[in-house]
Amino acid sequence: MMTSMAAAVFVGPGKIELREKTVPEVGPNDALLRITTTTICGTDVHILKGEYPVPPGLTVGHEPVGVIAQLGSSVTGYEEGQRAIAGAICPGFHSYACQDGWPAQDGEGVAHGYKAAGGWRFGNTIDGAQAEYLLVPDAQANLSPVPDGLTDEQVLMCPDIMSTGFAGAEHADIRLGDVVAVFAQGPIGLCATAGARLRGAAVVIAVDGIEGRLAVARQLGADITLDYRQVDVVSEIMRLTGGRGVDAAIEALGTQGTFEAALRVLRPGGTLSSLGVYAEDLRIPLGAFAAGLGDHRIVTSLCPGGKARMRRLMAMIESGRVDLGALVTHRFPLARIEDAYELFSHQRDGVLKVAISP
Amino acid sequence: MMTSMAAAVFVGPGKIELREKTVPEVGPNDALLRITTTTICGTDVHILKGEYPVPPGLTVGHEPVGVIAQLGSSVTGYEEGQRAIAGAICPGFHSYACQDGWPAQDGEGVAHGYKAAGGWRFGNTIDGAQAEYLLVPDAQANLSPVPDGLTDEQVLMCPDIMSTGFAGAEHADIRLGDVVAVFAQGPIGLCATAGARLRGAAVVIAVDGIEGRLAVARQLGADITLDYRQVDVVSEIMRLTGGRGVDAAIEALGTQGTFEAALRVLRPGGTLSSLGVYAEDLRIPLGAFAAGLGDHRIVTSLCPGGKARMRRLMAMIESGRVDLGALVTHRFPLARIEDAYELFSHQRDGVLKVAISP
Amino acid sequence: MMTSMAAAVFVGPGKIELREKTVPEVGPNDALLRITTTTICGTDVHILKGEYPVPPGLTVGHEPVGVIAQLGSSVTGYEEGQRAIAGAICPGFHSYACQDGWPAQDGEGVAHGYKAAGGWRFGNTIDGAQAEYLLVPDAQANLSPVPDGLTDEQVLMCPDIMSTGFAGAEHADIRLGDVVAVFAQGPIGLCATAGARLRGAAVVIAVDGIEGRLAVARQLGADITLDYRQVDVVSEIMRLTGGRGVDAAIEALGTQGTFEAALRVLRPGGTLSSLGVYAEDLRIPLGAFAAGLGDHRIVTSLCPGGKARMRRLMAMIESGRVDLGALVTHRFPLARIEDAYELFSHQRDGVLKVAISP
Amino acid sequence: MMTSMAAAVFVGPGKIELREKTVPEVGPNDALLRITTTTICGTDVHILKGEYPVPPGLTVGHEPVGVIAQLGSSVTGYEEGQRAIAGAICPGFHSYACQDGWPAQDGEGVAHGYKAAGGWRFGNTIDGAQAEYLLVPDAQANLSPVPDGLTDEQVLMCPDIMSTGFAGAEHADIRLGDVVAVFAQGPIGLCATAGARLRGAAVVIAVDGIEGRLAVARQLGADITLDYRQVDVVSEIMRLTGGRGVDAAIEALGTQGTFEAALRVLRPGGTLSSLGVYAEDLRIPLGAFAAGLGDHRIVTSLCPGGKARMRRLMAMIESGRVDLGALVTHRFPLARIEDAYELFSHQRDGVLKVAISP
Repeated sequence: MMTSMAAAVFVGPGKIELREKTVPEVGPNDALLRITTTTICGTDVHILKGEYPVPPGLTVGHEPVGVIAQLGSSVTGYEEGQRAIAGAICPGFHSYACQDGWPAQDGEGVAHGYKAAGGWRFGNTIDGAQAEYLLVPDAQANLSPVPDGLTDEQVLMCPDIMSTGFAGAEHADIRLGDVVAVFAQGPIGLCATAGARLRGAAVVIAVDGIEGRLAVARQLGADITLDYRQVDVVSEIMRLTGGRGVDAAIEALGTQGTFEAALRVLRPGGTLSSLGVYAEDLRIPLGAFAAGLGDHRIVTSLCPGGKARMRRLMAMIESGRVDLGALVTHRFPLARIEDAYELFSHQRDGVLKVAISP
Repeated sequence: MMTSMAAAVFVGPGKIELREKTVPEVGPNDALLRITTTTICGTDVHILKGEYPVPPGLTVGHEPVGVIAQLGSSVTGYEEGQRAIAGAICPGFHSYACQDGWPAQDGEGVAHGYKAAGGWRFGNTIDGAQAEYLLVPDAQANLSPVPDGLTDEQVLMCPDIMSTGFAGAEHADIRLGDVVAVFAQGPIGLCATAGARLRGAAVVIAVDGIEGRLAVARQLGADITLDYRQVDVVSEIMRLTGGRGVDAAIEALGTQGTFEAALRVLRPGGTLSSLGVYAEDLRIPLGAFAAGLGDHRIVTSLCPGGKARMRRLMAMIESGRVDLGALVTHRFPLARIEDAYELFSHQRDGVLKVAISP
Repeated sequence: MMTSMAAAVFVGPGKIELREKTVPEVGPNDALLRITTTTICGTDVHILKGEYPVPPGLTVGHEPVGVIAQLGSSVTGYEEGQRAIAGAICPGFHSYACQDGWPAQDGEGVAHGYKAAGGWRFGNTIDGAQAEYLLVPDAQANLSPVPDGLTDEQVLMCPDIMSTGFAGAEHADIRLGDVVAVFAQGPIGLCATAGARLRGAAVVIAVDGIEGRLAVARQLGADITLDYRQVDVVSEIMRLTGGRGVDAAIEALGTQGTFEAALRVLRPGGTLSSLGVYAEDLRIPLGAFAAGLGDHRIVTSLCPGGKARMRRLMAMIESGRVDLGALVTHRFPLARIEDAYELFSHQRDGVLKVAISP
Repeated sequence: MMTSMAAAVFVGPGKIELREKTVPEVGPNDALLRITTTTICGTDVHILKGEYPVPPGLTVGHEPVGVIAQLGSSVTGYEEGQRAIAGAICPGFHSYACQDGWPAQDGEGVAHGYKAAGGWRFGNTIDGAQAEYLLVPDAQANLSPVPDGLTDEQVLMCPDIMSTGFAGAEHADIRLGDVVAVFAQGPIGLCATAGARLRGAAVVIAVDGIEGRLAVARQLGADITLDYRQVDVVSEIMRLTGGRGVDAAIEALGTQGTFEAALRVLRPGGTLSSLGVYAEDLRIPLGAFAAGLGDHRIVTSLCPGGKARMRRLMAMIESGRVDLGALVTHRFPLARIEDAYELFSHQRDGVLKVAISP
């Protein structure tokens, strides 16, 4: 095994560069994954732009697909050479937060084991996946073998996008026969659309302003797609539902506009499932909120991680329930990751997700 | 039976007066309740001030305790002369909203059966309880006999205050061993405090600015009381919880300040259970909300109604689980209800709730 | 409107005959439905055989599709001439059981409003649907309009088979990525198979001994079908799941064999969702039950009724989520219903369900 | 630190003896606990009698209270000398079962990570707590510091009895206002009684045949106690509930008689929460089960473990919600543990639990 490797490193606001780094050493509970495919997330772009602070010198990226290169002495039941993924969120599963049911809010050692988004470590508090090698901490809890017959690209969305988008649907309390609206059809919104369908919604309404994305939404399970540049989305959804509104609304962008529209179309007693990462205070409009008397629920979800989650998501792909292949629109070698950031961060050329191969 | 009766009528903003009205006629699904005790709610004060619009001429009040005077031809299993209460919210239990599990959002005939707060009819869309007689619609679903041995005052809080406050605790996802904070200790907040204790919270922290109310909170189950005039409540709660925050926070006032404080002390993965009736748009502070990544839940509840709910609440009182007697601080005959409004609307003399007897 | 009508009447064990009856009178909360299509259920066969006692003279059948012929004076929001269905279970939605969330166990007037299976009235405690006219009690809660564009046969399974089978899946706590086994592929089992797929199971395993039924199971969503005449189902499922067992098992026949097999393949922490109507005491094998230490759940479900449930089910059909057309294998006029019983009760000619048209 | 220690060892059926053993070595994820107090469980008696097989030579016991003597190199956030407990069930929290929410069914390395009761290791698959020292595996997930001010005896029930009994109440779906019956008032049943009260039942009915235990039940929260030697418990509970039956029934013995009685008094739609360890196949009586049509639920629970669970239970004791002191009826030094077994296994002298101090 090599002792040095290429890694995409956050240098400072506006600058992520490929640098040479030392391949990390493996502790008793770790595993070293040789990355075969990874991708770039919207969050990485926030890091690039300096909008989300990480320490300079950190390797970015949190969506790993690879091969087990080395296992820590306490990690059992895996083999070197085995293909595996790990979730974007990779908690220890030891902490109070994890045991209470909130692994993404893991904060071992911090405030009784709870820390907001503390389960997100790759490319945030420790070196990430846009590199030739990735050190996976608490590997026993986080390494998930890839079933034979699934390609890297088929499982590339599992670590983050698919887990997040599906969680948006799972936490929306969808019942058979529900009408669900999904606001924004970026990669996460598209997965939420697929997830809403898979949970048994009778009607899934997908909203976006880019026709190409709405087309993918239809492919992934949307019954109705609305282009907010062409219709007043709120009144159109109220019309489509005979004035009742939707049973659940999923927000997948992180803006006041999408959040507010989601609330405005939500029936009394409905659930607003919010996935977006917001950049400023949110406002809850009094009327849409029925002054607090509407039995509404607003639920936020951070990407669920862990090997059990990854296994479930891959099982859905393996049995053909969903095919997220259409999300990979571009491919780059790791050596050209800076070009990939250039394309992805400017949303050029209809890009949805890029596959990066070291 | 008399054909005319005294009733507290909304005349116009600032004016609720006792007027003579005709005793209502009883349809096949109705019951006529001779009111023996009723009370005034904060919502009635909003109506009085013209802040919440109801049609002039409407009898106000939604908290009835009485005796069945007459039963509709289709109502079975009750007897005239029987003591009974009905919930402040009295849906038909026919509508889609009711059958889907949201009876307070009942809207029979409206937008597929959903209407925000549509289950609230007494003193809102039909004549209310501050009168000598009250017509109870859908009586089969809403009349709940009072167990022998319970006085009117003992069950007077069931129709609204207790049902609402307890719902705040029930919807807060409290687990055995949780720490719960309740913001504001008016009648509803006090019931939420009692409810949090009854659901198994290990520590209940009650917040208010009036010492008399904090004393009642301690009596009803608060382990710790905080006077917001004397301590910075948010930092004190964070200190008390070792930096973790509370597992659930209940908002029981309806202001930006209490809502925001509730969110600021809430741990990641926690539930903010909101009971207040807000008067303006709410703001969700970005940091406290972890930018949407904290697995937080914000849940609102409207007072649950129906005879089953009333039966359960009275069972809690009957078996001594809770004694809300301390909430009745003043008593008035119906003839002096205008004085009662005067006292209650200005929160004079340490008033919590007033008992009104026709 | 006619005053007399043809009705299939239980005369005594072994004998259901078409008789002339008076068209029922409509009370204030009733509706009269002119039946256009109905069907025969396995339960009707138990009645026919005298295994389930009903009063002689009762009209049987509980799966109505029809046209509103007359509305009671208190029933609003419907029109005569409108097409509608009603659930096999038609509670009043008044009782404590209904308000507590168990409408199928409705017992208005009985033991505080709870009665096992008390919501089942059609063809059980009141005249049923195998007739030219059906009186629907509590019509406001039970009549559900058929969307334009759906045929009678498309919605014929909603009142019972589809509602029951789907409930089996809904109460099985299925999560995205689960493996679910469904034991027996009669009409209810087939609907459970469809339901398990619609709730997001990654793998649905359908078990039966009739190849024709397994073929329909594959069409409705089964990934794997097992013929118990050809394989040892328990060991085959354990092999397929790598020794773990299934996450949920649905029993859809009502025998010791299927119940026991369901428990034997269930992983620790899994849910056994039981739909069958049993004819004798059940035995729980100690080992499969892990001596009570396996965190297992055994859940039974009676067909959910009510207009909201019916609306949801029809929405699933309308949006193409499921097509149960394959279940209608034979058609008879009401005049020939005795022949239909003959065919159906002997399970001749590959029959799944028969459509009966007055 | 000593290198040898006294330990209660299973020698063979009928024989548990105090033997000299080597103090275990501490691996990177382990901790060594110096036991200060422990106790004997009914399960240990089954082991003693040879009814539950464990390997000869194994140290028995699974209820540890102690002081941290040594920490593994990967265990952080604890200090040697700190007082701590660990749950009777001490899973790794790595496995699929743990991450899916069933830590007690942990089976790392076994059948995709699920193994019935696999989370139970102490005194079952690894050396247990009836010794001077106990090796705690996966210490980061399982060690839970004892709050200052709580004595050993105050927290001695947390590892097993209290966690199990409370789980019986937590999984019984208790709502405010429910009536709950608890069958058998041994240590677990008494904790279930306390738990049912703490979750908000309006009426808790405790059943046993020993007056001393019923007296403790009243002290811990039972409203009504029934001695099965004096009344027909089933008919008495039906009478007390006006024929409706209880909303939830908790079985805490593990016999056909208690299981069956629990089902017979359960209302339709109710939950039977089973805690007992059964010794033979169970029979579900057809009538009580409404032939499978009663919307009944049967739920089994194995003692929840992990440091978060322990923290919550100790919080309940710390805040005075429950005082289980009355359960410790006898005290022995470890040197006399064979006498303790003699007393406890024959249920002499009104024994509930014995405290054993090395």
